[in-house]
Amino acid sequence: MLNHELSKNNFFMKEACHLAETSIQLGGGPFGCIITDPSENIIGRGHNRVTIDNDPTLHAEMVAIKDACRQKNTFNLSGCTLYTSCEPCPMCLSAIYWARIGTVFYGNTRADASNIGFDDSFIYEEVSKPIEERSVVMKQVGYEDSNTNFEIWKTAFEIWKNYEKRIDY
Amino acid sequence: MLNHELSKNNFFMKEACHLAETSIQLGGGPFGCIITDPSENIIGRGHNRVTIDNDPTLHAEMVAIKDACRQKNTFNLSGCTLYTSCEPCPMCLSAIYWARIGTVFYGNTRADASNIGFDDSFIYEEVSKPIEERSVVMKQVGYEDSNTNFEIWKTAFEIWKNYEKRIDY
Repeated sequence: MLNHELSKNNFFMKEACHLAETSIQLGGGPFGCIITDPSENIIGRGHNRVTIDNDPTLHAEMVAIKDACRQKNTFNLSGCTLYTSCEPCPMCLSAIYWARIGTVFYGNTRADASNIGFDDSFIYEEVSKPIEERSVVMKQVGYEDSNTNFEIWKTAFEIWKNYEKRIDY
Repeated sequence: MLNHELSKNNFFMKEACHLAETSIQLGGGPFGCIITDPSENIIGRGHNRVTIDNDPTLHAEMVAIKDACRQKNTFNLSGCTLYTSCEPCPMCLSAIYWARIGTVFYGNTRADASNIGFDDSFIYEEVSKPIEERSVVMKQVGYEDSNTNFEIWKTAFEIWKNYEKRIDY
């Protein structure tokens, strides 16, 4: 890595870590995140808000992605870079894929997070398992609609396939 | 499964599928979800809002989890059950773990979702890979703070470990 690239990375990582420290004081978990656009402007900021907002989905990366999408009025952050004080959990990593973010810089690892009591490693293991081996019980419900003679959940997908006004994402 | 359990499952699944169909009309993706509490009251509802709100994190399950947590004023949905018109993607599955939901009933599979253009299967594969093999570039930044002589991202975790007022989740 070139020296000036390293110093930019350090600057953005420092911002993310500053948010992680601020989060604790505000009643959240010790995680912070920023997102930069291709011109290296900060377009999204977030810190953990799970216990602040009583919302288990509001990890730092999720808050930053929501913030960046709001700023840019888009659900597609292609070309953007995410800096997070800790390796993203599978929820946040998947959101990074859905948002089309291409590059992630992180600090602490999932093992570091486990060491202070967070379930990141456990959830990585669970998500990678076959459905029937997970600790969460998961079952497909086989309900057939008497009008259509196929499972009720198929209807929405059938409508979607043929829906001219659909917005793919 | 007992007959009356099957009919309850069918009722809740039908609600989730109804939300999936409604979602398309409102400009969202074809996914719906409901959450029931241990007494089998519906406490959360959601449909996909990605393209409606320009927010890639707002899958049906995420919206339903947020709704249930808001209704119950908690980040912990232990004992609750989630019904979703499609197998949760890894983002939503991880959120299910973070929310401590114990049981999931689903309709379409990740393969069904792939067949109509959604990346669920791809993201499952990516999340399960070692970091260096993923299509998203992920790097740990090795910045040391000159005052503390350790990486800046460690500070928040150190504060957290010793923070008496912290709320574990």
